[in-house]
Amino acid sequence: MTTLYPSIKRISGNNIASPIGFSAAGIHCGIKHKKSDLAILVSDVPANAAGVYTTNVVQAAPLLVTKQSLAETGKMQAIIVNSGNANACTGKKGLEDAKTMQANAADKLGIAHNLVGVASTGVIGEKLPIDKIVNGISKLEPTSGLKGSIDFSQSILTTDTVSKNTAYSVTIDGQTVTIAGTAKGSGMIHPNMATMLGFVTTDAAIGSDDLHSALSSVVDRTFNSITVDGDTSTNDMVLVMANGLAGNNTLVPNHPDWDVFVQTLLLVCEDLGKMIAKDGEGATKLIETEVTGAISDSEARMIAKTVVGSPLVKTAVFGCDANWGRILAAVGYSGATLDPDKIKIQIGTTTVVSDGEPVDFSEDELIEYLKQPEIKIKVNLQEGAGKGLAWGCDLTYDYVQINASYRT
Amino acid sequence: MTTLYPSIKRISGNNIASPIGFSAAGIHCGIKHKKSDLAILVSDVPANAAGVYTTNVVQAAPLLVTKQSLAETGKMQAIIVNSGNANACTGKKGLEDAKTMQANAADKLGIAHNLVGVASTGVIGEKLPIDKIVNGISKLEPTSGLKGSIDFSQSILTTDTVSKNTAYSVTIDGQTVTIAGTAKGSGMIHPNMATMLGFVTTDAAIGSDDLHSALSSVVDRTFNSITVDGDTSTNDMVLVMANGLAGNNTLVPNHPDWDVFVQTLLLVCEDLGKMIAKDGEGATKLIETEVTGAISDSEARMIAKTVVGSPLVKTAVFGCDANWGRILAAVGYSGATLDPDKIKIQIGTTTVVSDGEPVDFSEDELIEYLKQPEIKIKVNLQEGAGKGLAWGCDLTYDYVQINASYRT
Repeated sequence: MTTLYPSIKRISGNNIASPIGFSAAGIHCGIKHKKSDLAILVSDVPANAAGVYTTNVVQAAPLLVTKQSLAETGKMQAIIVNSGNANACTGKKGLEDAKTMQANAADKLGIAHNLVGVASTGVIGEKLPIDKIVNGISKLEPTSGLKGSIDFSQSILTTDTVSKNTAYSVTIDGQTVTIAGTAKGSGMIHPNMATMLGFVTTDAAIGSDDLHSALSSVVDRTFNSITVDGDTSTNDMVLVMANGLAGNNTLVPNHPDWDVFVQTLLLVCEDLGKMIAKDGEGATKLIETEVTGAISDSEARMIAKTVVGSPLVKTAVFGCDANWGRILAAVGYSGATLDPDKIKIQIGTTTVVSDGEPVDFSEDELIEYLKQPEIKIKVNLQEGAGKGLAWGCDLTYDYVQINASYRT
Repeated sequence: MTTLYPSIKRISGNNIASPIGFSAAGIHCGIKHKKSDLAILVSDVPANAAGVYTTNVVQAAPLLVTKQSLAETGKMQAIIVNSGNANACTGKKGLEDAKTMQANAADKLGIAHNLVGVASTGVIGEKLPIDKIVNGISKLEPTSGLKGSIDFSQSILTTDTVSKNTAYSVTIDGQTVTIAGTAKGSGMIHPNMATMLGFVTTDAAIGSDDLHSALSSVVDRTFNSITVDGDTSTNDMVLVMANGLAGNNTLVPNHPDWDVFVQTLLLVCEDLGKMIAKDGEGATKLIETEVTGAISDSEARMIAKTVVGSPLVKTAVFGCDANWGRILAAVGYSGATLDPDKIKIQIGTTTVVSDGEPVDFSEDELIEYLKQPEIKIKVNLQEGAGKGLAWGCDLTYDYVQINASYRT
């Protein structure tokens, strides 16, 4: 967490129902063998909402339903989520099933159908066991306490090994505003958006359009800057609900606290993105790449993402091999504008390349550094003022094991 | 091998010195611990030559030297190659070393320095042991027999498990023209050009510019359509030498046998590309993806390459999992123009997706199919007449093992 705004505070008992007026629940409905697999997130009142979605041309049914509903209303009051089955590539029946999920959740809450978002994650191409889900929805009892949030965050997981939650408070117009987030994602992660679900709640008052522009700008620098395996999924989305119950004046771009709100939203999304990268399938280490001196921020992020996405960099980090040549090669094929003779590379605090040429360093010290759970790689192109971050993880035997036998 | 030209014949004792007037040699000079690591390929007379090179902005010293020399002369009479050290990211000393390799090989043969191509492959960022190479060059004795070619093809390998050779003969102007090729490449393979070296010899008479245009068109459909790990290297190139000793009239685009020559060149490069993919680091299977019905051939190739490059498809093939959802997801994020509801997918001869929807199939039969060493995936978009092929390999524990400990 790095921020220039002292009023931003991390909430320790962070949970998705932290903001005023939110509740959540999660249960086992029978899609998975034993683990919980159905969850609901509810706002007491209709919340202004925004979403960003996978860029994959093949998009799952729940995503189509959610996009359509949000386009109609600009609002959302609940989100129903299942794990264990992605309801993707399931044709017309898949679309019907997603609408059935939406309708059942809405009817249970006594709200309009198009105020409910629908999300699914899991195996692609199998029909949803819709009867189990309908039966499960009748048993969901959302609560505002910690248990409901924990159940929610656990019920949305697939190959994730840990649930991912974060929350911050910030002062806006003298009112305490809370922003909380939870996410899932472990494989098929190369968002744009991709293979992940992210849910953000806030009690801030903010219009849907402004919420969307804030979310979009933040997602590029967070969720879209992580990669696990370069595969962009069919299902993934980040949804944010702002129910306005904090009592601040409605946030607009020229509101004096607009920037601090966006910064807080950024911290929530950055936390979740890093948690996803760190929990990448089979991963043992988080890799953070910071690029400076690029000709633009977007090129810097592109380079950073290429480095953390390189299978050869990922395996080298797994093997504690300070193989900087692979980092330099990845920078070179990233597509960015650069002069190879000006590049500087650091692994941790050790400079390994300066002005494009190798620098002597202690291999033993770097091996020790590479045994840490969080590895930082810094690249300076010395071309301009562009900077950016990206996060990924190492590539391990377990990634292969998990994905060679995912369905079987 | 599929061709419409009956005069094209595969040569069984295929070797890089098959065409008239070529000789080769390979020895151990001490860069590697035990395996051979220095090789030379020679034409009796200066040959018209062409090259294609990595698109990586970071390019190795030998590549810069070769490009420069070829630009000066349009010809090449010999190529000196070392393995075990890429001479990449080695600064000014690296450039000096590459020139020293070139000069020593040229002086030994008594030819102009800029008639010698230089290639290196191996670890990035370490200085060449130039004394060992200079000493080794003095011991190279190229011969036109099979042994010289075998030694050459083995001396250029790094993590490859097999050497890669192919040769075809074809009749042009009533003369037998031979085209032969040898290549190396196993990891850091995502050419454009990338992480591989390919050498093609022919006794055809053809000008340098026409040779370059033939090579470029062929490379896009062969070497540039394979991927092992998505990493585009700093060193890779394909060089072709045409010494004209076959006695045909000089080939030009309107020569009646131009097409058959290009087709033969294509077969040589396709054979080598497939051998590289099949021998990908840690690979147990070759994956071929054929895309039809795309809006253009280039989009078809892009989709095919995205599918064979998907880590999730690769691990599924390794695990004999008929996980067609991952194929569909990869098609979806390839960036190509398509309608998800029209896609048809076959694994082997089994249709698994039709008009974008799953089709019932025997999982057991597909598991048996997926145990074969060569897996074919067919995708039909039903959008246009574009078609293309790409080749890759499965992602295995051994890939991780090899790359987690490459330098150590």
